[in-house]
Amino acid sequence: MPCGLLSAWHCTLILKFMKHYYYACSDCGKTYSPEKIESELIYLCPECGKAEKNMPLKGVLSVLYDFKSLKKILTKNVFLNFSEGKYWQYPQLFPLEYSAKNFSLKGISEDKLNNIRTNAAPVTRCVYKNEQVMIFDDTRNPTLSYKDRASSLVALKALQMGITEISAASTGNAGSSLAGICARLGIKSHIFVPEKIPAGKRIQIQSFGAQIYLVKSDYDGVFDLCLEVSNAKGWYNRNTAYNPLTVEGKKTSAYDMYIALKGNMPDYIFVSVGDGVIISGIYKGLFELKELGLIKKLPHLIGVQAKGSDALVRYMKDEKFKYKPASTLADSISAGAPRNLYMAHRSVVNTQGSVIAVSDKEILDAQKQSARSFGYLIEPAASAAFAGFIKMKKEKNIPEGAKSMLMFTGNGLKDSSALSEWNKEIKPLSSEEWKKLLKIK
Amino acid sequence: MPCGLLSAWHCTLILKFMKHYYYACSDCGKTYSPEKIESELIYLCPECGKAEKNMPLKGVLSVLYDFKSLKKILTKNVFLNFSEGKYWQYPQLFPLEYSAKNFSLKGISEDKLNNIRTNAAPVTRCVYKNEQVMIFDDTRNPTLSYKDRASSLVALKALQMGITEISAASTGNAGSSLAGICARLGIKSHIFVPEKIPAGKRIQIQSFGAQIYLVKSDYDGVFDLCLEVSNAKGWYNRNTAYNPLTVEGKKTSAYDMYIALKGNMPDYIFVSVGDGVIISGIYKGLFELKELGLIKKLPHLIGVQAKGSDALVRYMKDEKFKYKPASTLADSISAGAPRNLYMAHRSVVNTQGSVIAVSDKEILDAQKQSARSFGYLIEPAASAAFAGFIKMKKEKNIPEGAKSMLMFTGNGLKDSSALSEWNKEIKPLSSEEWKKLLKIK
Repeated sequence: MPCGLLSAWHCTLILKFMKHYYYACSDCGKTYSPEKIESELIYLCPECGKAEKNMPLKGVLSVLYDFKSLKKILTKNVFLNFSEGKYWQYPQLFPLEYSAKNFSLKGISEDKLNNIRTNAAPVTRCVYKNEQVMIFDDTRNPTLSYKDRASSLVALKALQMGITEISAASTGNAGSSLAGICARLGIKSHIFVPEKIPAGKRIQIQSFGAQIYLVKSDYDGVFDLCLEVSNAKGWYNRNTAYNPLTVEGKKTSAYDMYIALKGNMPDYIFVSVGDGVIISGIYKGLFELKELGLIKKLPHLIGVQAKGSDALVRYMKDEKFKYKPASTLADSISAGAPRNLYMAHRSVVNTQGSVIAVSDKEILDAQKQSARSFGYLIEPAASAAFAGFIKMKKEKNIPEGAKSMLMFTGNGLKDSSALSEWNKEIKPLSSEEWKKLLKIK
Repeated sequence: MPCGLLSAWHCTLILKFMKHYYYACSDCGKTYSPEKIESELIYLCPECGKAEKNMPLKGVLSVLYDFKSLKKILTKNVFLNFSEGKYWQYPQLFPLEYSAKNFSLKGISEDKLNNIRTNAAPVTRCVYKNEQVMIFDDTRNPTLSYKDRASSLVALKALQMGITEISAASTGNAGSSLAGICARLGIKSHIFVPEKIPAGKRIQIQSFGAQIYLVKSDYDGVFDLCLEVSNAKGWYNRNTAYNPLTVEGKKTSAYDMYIALKGNMPDYIFVSVGDGVIISGIYKGLFELKELGLIKKLPHLIGVQAKGSDALVRYMKDEKFKYKPASTLADSISAGAPRNLYMAHRSVVNTQGSVIAVSDKEILDAQKQSARSFGYLIEPAASAAFAGFIKMKKEKNIPEGAKSMLMFTGNGLKDSSALSEWNKEIKPLSSEEWKKLLKIK
């Protein structure tokens, strides 16, 4: 377990590695110095790491810090003075180089950082069926999705390592996020996509000036090609889960939540699960908040999957993974072999959370409910989280009065095809016909 | 002139009208009590107002305040403690009811207000051809456009007047903004649109649960029908320019700019002009900042129009309006008869600004430049402002070192058809073909 590793020999490791962080394998527990991992551009555990076709990744690395020392510095008062969306204000919790004098990131201007800031006011409170529910709004990030959190940390790391080209294999969203963030930071991006990518996603990636590689293959083939080319060219790779900084970037929402709520965290957090990187990231952020002594107990993480892409739901039962091709209209969480399955599983277990599957119909209904009740136009992958909440409420699996947070991970306009499903064409009428119908005059 | 009216009899009027504001005609100068205007749901000047087919509106009303008294209270220090996107923190400058004790808006919860907040960090700094340029980013508002500023003020006013239904005639964007903001506040919206509305815009409006009226007519016919039905039904009307609170809501960007820049305003502000409401709003905000003694001189407003919709550019020459059907791909600024032409004209003149027309090709080029250089995906109407900047820079009409602000008024994903123009389809290759092409192995 990435976070089970923490112990007394923490400080020893930190001292030994001469940095404020080190890497540890989330499966076998072996630890590595940042120098080894970063100078050789290693992504998975050199000991047990494996990226096999149609299988979750083995040996995903985690980044760990000296929480015992940080606890004395990063107190509640200090934290509540930070701003949401500016995680570089506390660089001690990220694998980035910073000045010990003023905690500024080395080599990156404040202007550039402000350009990649996520939604500066991410938490809102809405009412659903007379009950308050909180929304974590990542639909207003630079490229309108949660993925910007991972892309930005990976891009900052690349800049500090002196690498000016980043690659990613993507079915669309991670690619457009990386392309947009790279454009904001002046980095060249290379995005590998399967030939069946929807036109809208291709266009977003191309717009940002990324080099796009349309491959006659499915996502797995694209993933492999991307790794091979990136290795040969020396590009930094952002493949989700594979690069440990994707989970690391995605942990920032937990910190933003803590700041926005002034430390009063929710009881339940509903988050949709595809590859399992977002839920793992939120868990890591929550875990760190606890290690820092900022929260006493972890909110329960509720992982919501589409019925047609429910690998985690099935894995929860017997801890056996069986590949099943995914089929759901919520394409951002469509994953037959979730790359971060094992970490996602631990995230649910360690927070005494649970998982639930919802049908595509329930996802579309929740998308409609969200637009009409809250005024939030969200993509199906995001409305899945809301559908899970509705379902668990109906089944009375959430206590009355418990505080729930819904993670809205992507804007509905990133993929508007689902919206057409429930907003049918209508027939125009003349002015006279409208007036007659409305009984005017 | 709306702001030429300010004089010694200000206080007298304020006292006479028993409110902290009053209305004045921007053309004939006649003043009106809020009671008269609001209880009878009057929009244009009762004396000289006229809404004629294919003509700019006559008698657009302005809202005026007692700046002389406010000046003593709303000082620079006070202002810099406000947050961007929360104009209700200084309700004295809006035609809204508030508590004199704690300045909170009457009858509207803090949660609802936070849900309609615009981008909380709207100003960023980018570099274009080695020169710094500032961006005012309204692409991350609740419905991803500047129009949310007008919609939110109109909706708050409706709530305070006890009206629970709002209508608007729209070619698409104002309608989806109003529908989204109304959904966030629990208000019913009625949106009248011409039959030729693009599917994407129709779907956004429908998604938010608005009642949509597809009319066999052009925008003018839709405008008339919307007014007639709204009058008969007692709905509050948000037609742009027609409702004085549209300009009033759009002035908030000037205040947000002031707060974000800690009072150091730009020398030039580039803003695209269609109906002329945004530029009039920015001008009003700037003017008020000056009246409050917060800024000494007004930034120059540069109005940018599409060549195929250049009514203001033509009007600047001889102050004669001649209707010419508009034709440009930048549909949000396509207006043959800009409703707020006269106010837009005064906004440019009074700031010693200027106007410029750019071709659709220049608009698309700027859209591409924005995505690639800045990482901002913006709609053509927004990139027009950038195109104007590029053109004036090239023609050396902006002094070296002058501080320029570009108003990015709408997200590119609100209307992605323009993006397809310059992101062509590509041919997929097999992994082997890619490797050969990239000279790998």
